[in-house]
Amino acid sequence: MAKDIQRFSYVMCLLVSILVNIFFFKNMYYEKEKLSWSQRAAEEAEAVASISCSGNGRVYIDSIVVDGKPICECYSCYGGPDCSLFFPNCPVNVESGDPLFLEPFWIQNAASSAVVVAGWHRMSYSFPNQSHISKELEKSIRKIHAIAKNAITDGRYIVFGVGSTQLLNAAVHALSMEKPSSSFPAKVVAKIPYYRPYKLQTEFFQTLHYEFEGDSSILRNKSDFAGVVIEFVTSPNNPDGNLRSPVLKGPNVKTIYDHAYYWPHYTAIPAPADKDLMLFSISKLTGHAGSRFGWAIVKDVNVYKRMMDYIVLAEMGFSKDTQLRALTLLKVVAQGNGKQIFNFGHEIMRDRWEKMSHVFSLSKRFRLQSIPTQYCTFLDRTREPSPGYAWVKCKRKEDKNCTQVFRVAKIIGRPGSKFFAKNRYVRLSLLKGQHDFEMLIRRLKQLVSREDEEGVQPMSSF
Amino acid sequence: MAKDIQRFSYVMCLLVSILVNIFFFKNMYYEKEKLSWSQRAAEEAEAVASISCSGNGRVYIDSIVVDGKPICECYSCYGGPDCSLFFPNCPVNVESGDPLFLEPFWIQNAASSAVVVAGWHRMSYSFPNQSHISKELEKSIRKIHAIAKNAITDGRYIVFGVGSTQLLNAAVHALSMEKPSSSFPAKVVAKIPYYRPYKLQTEFFQTLHYEFEGDSSILRNKSDFAGVVIEFVTSPNNPDGNLRSPVLKGPNVKTIYDHAYYWPHYTAIPAPADKDLMLFSISKLTGHAGSRFGWAIVKDVNVYKRMMDYIVLAEMGFSKDTQLRALTLLKVVAQGNGKQIFNFGHEIMRDRWEKMSHVFSLSKRFRLQSIPTQYCTFLDRTREPSPGYAWVKCKRKEDKNCTQVFRVAKIIGRPGSKFFAKNRYVRLSLLKGQHDFEMLIRRLKQLVSREDEEGVQPMSSF
Repeated sequence: MAKDIQRFSYVMCLLVSILVNIFFFKNMYYEKEKLSWSQRAAEEAEAVASISCSGNGRVYIDSIVVDGKPICECYSCYGGPDCSLFFPNCPVNVESGDPLFLEPFWIQNAASSAVVVAGWHRMSYSFPNQSHISKELEKSIRKIHAIAKNAITDGRYIVFGVGSTQLLNAAVHALSMEKPSSSFPAKVVAKIPYYRPYKLQTEFFQTLHYEFEGDSSILRNKSDFAGVVIEFVTSPNNPDGNLRSPVLKGPNVKTIYDHAYYWPHYTAIPAPADKDLMLFSISKLTGHAGSRFGWAIVKDVNVYKRMMDYIVLAEMGFSKDTQLRALTLLKVVAQGNGKQIFNFGHEIMRDRWEKMSHVFSLSKRFRLQSIPTQYCTFLDRTREPSPGYAWVKCKRKEDKNCTQVFRVAKIIGRPGSKFFAKNRYVRLSLLKGQHDFEMLIRRLKQLVSREDEEGVQPMSSF
Repeated sequence: MAKDIQRFSYVMCLLVSILVNIFFFKNMYYEKEKLSWSQRAAEEAEAVASISCSGNGRVYIDSIVVDGKPICECYSCYGGPDCSLFFPNCPVNVESGDPLFLEPFWIQNAASSAVVVAGWHRMSYSFPNQSHISKELEKSIRKIHAIAKNAITDGRYIVFGVGSTQLLNAAVHALSMEKPSSSFPAKVVAKIPYYRPYKLQTEFFQTLHYEFEGDSSILRNKSDFAGVVIEFVTSPNNPDGNLRSPVLKGPNVKTIYDHAYYWPHYTAIPAPADKDLMLFSISKLTGHAGSRFGWAIVKDVNVYKRMMDYIVLAEMGFSKDTQLRALTLLKVVAQGNGKQIFNFGHEIMRDRWEKMSHVFSLSKRFRLQSIPTQYCTFLDRTREPSPGYAWVKCKRKEDKNCTQVFRVAKIIGRPGSKFFAKNRYVRLSLLKGQHDFEMLIRRLKQLVSREDEEGVQPMSSF
């Protein structure tokens, strides 16, 4: 009897074991069948992503290879092969508009935002029907504007560009050809303080058809100018984050609305924008400045055609790889109710502005720009500001070079003169990674707390 | 005894089964650990790639989605949802230079040429050290030139561009600023027949610093011109595939060598090119025209800096996605002894040229360009031609519009006038997919075989 029980146990154990085997076998077989040619690339990507760099850096799949392995790229103020060295006296660099505050969003959405590019992916110059534009990407862009409630796209044309940067000059070119055609080149203007590339690009690529004139107000009372006037209106404005309207009006005035920051992360959305020519970019929407992808929303078919001609002639269309990347990212943005990234971005920017405002509220030496609270149709409530940049004024008479004042305090900002304003102003980016922002706040607190002690002395010992 | 043996068998079976279980478990655990966030993207890519489209089309990961699934993009002359419909009377389109003959190479190398792009990949504007250029990609480019023996890169600067297309104008801009600086704008020329964008782009982006002049020979005897002359030298030439030297020489003459086709696929490589400014592109090297990636090899540091300024101002650098794609592809090119893609490409192009030459050798009506056999340092032997295009002359007096003659025979070529030559010439692309090439050869055979019957009559019944 005991032996029978023993034998029964053996048989049962064996049966269970065989069943488990079958389960494993099926599983394995299924797994194997699922992935073939993409397995190597997937493994490589995950292996690279798993290198920690002490939490103070990152390895990318195209990082510099040393001894057969890609090496860590350390965050600012960190060094060493594994980024474990911290340089406490290194200046915090908040000069650029690198939108790295959105990086954690993509790490949180790793699975949905990854994309596998096959070796044979879109080798041709064009999409079907000789188009240079991915229809699916265009569809995604329209969908996201509808979610963000920040622009009307129905019945509008969409042009892609290498960042909105390329589209700046494409738009100037297209509008400079508008009637009234005259023997004068079109005059291009923007209201101070404005984003520097408007001037640099227009002057660099100056043709017989347009020239840069300077501040918009120069032309305010010159109703005698017979040619076309093109005004850049940046809204919200870079550097100061305020919503803007054109300075100039009239039948010969054409306006380029640079809406790079017109997303719920950075501003109240009082109403969907519905202008003739509007520029947007993935850089400030998803944080992918490195992808260089922007778009224009255009009402007039002739302006649209001239912009397309410009881009096709300059570069024979757009990178299919960049378009695929943008599509992948925008699909994630549109997931669910599509509000996830806006809430994420807004929350961070609002928090940063609050901290920033608090520090400067304790200062008599510096003044932060003021941005009114406004009703936001996206959030469906009145909201506090959450701009991408602090636009700081040094109030002391002797602080003529505000950038230098901050530089001494080990904070690198962008001088007012780069926005054609006085150097009494400096722009500090609030868009960078959390690590940079925290260092910025620490340094600012120190700078402000020393105001009374130091008086007007330069803070060389800081 | 028998029972003991039976029990022993049970135990052994159980042991084996458990061991197999352990094996499976380890395997599965290992597999699971290997892929996490990239699994979804890999599965999606493989699922898309496995859709067959009856062998007459392809689905891409960003193809238009209908009912939740991406749909087939059919090859020319095929249609229907699964591309199973053939339109026998449809014209074969060999107008463009789409280099799809290389697609099978990438399908053969599917595993090594796939790349997984993580959602957080290179969000920043720049690489470390504020560079816009991937060092690894630059390294790969230098390596491949060394393998192909087609250019000297040691001690030279490399500029990236959106295809070599963008670099055409960047180079014209940079060279137009060279001394002798004079009050004259630089004159830009190219020898007929030449690639149309040289003229179109130079005229479109014309600044005060340069203007398009026309055929190089215009300036041959004008030694009195005090300004800078910029000559485009395309070698091998597009459309005719012949190696070329500059028409103009002299201290004020600057030359842009467009070496897009200077790869072993298309030409003998008599020696590595070692000129001041040379343009190359991934489009004709790997076949990825859609990626829009090219590069310039530049000797002079000032020319290099001006070209970089141009590109950074125009577009604030280059897409990191495109750079990653290019790096992935070039790594595959450099695999093993690095000769695989060149042998593959050369074999196809040589075979196509042979078939083409054979068909036209039977014709009295048409004449194919002649390309001399030449010693090739890459193959280390004298080799027959293998150009990217057939440049066909219609010899009959009345065939003034050669493109039309081919059009009636259901072959779409690019007219001679698009290369500023006579319309008695037409360019037929030999670079397209196998399916298009085979259709082209069939149609050409029919056209040539009817020469005697038809005399000078238009072949309307064809």
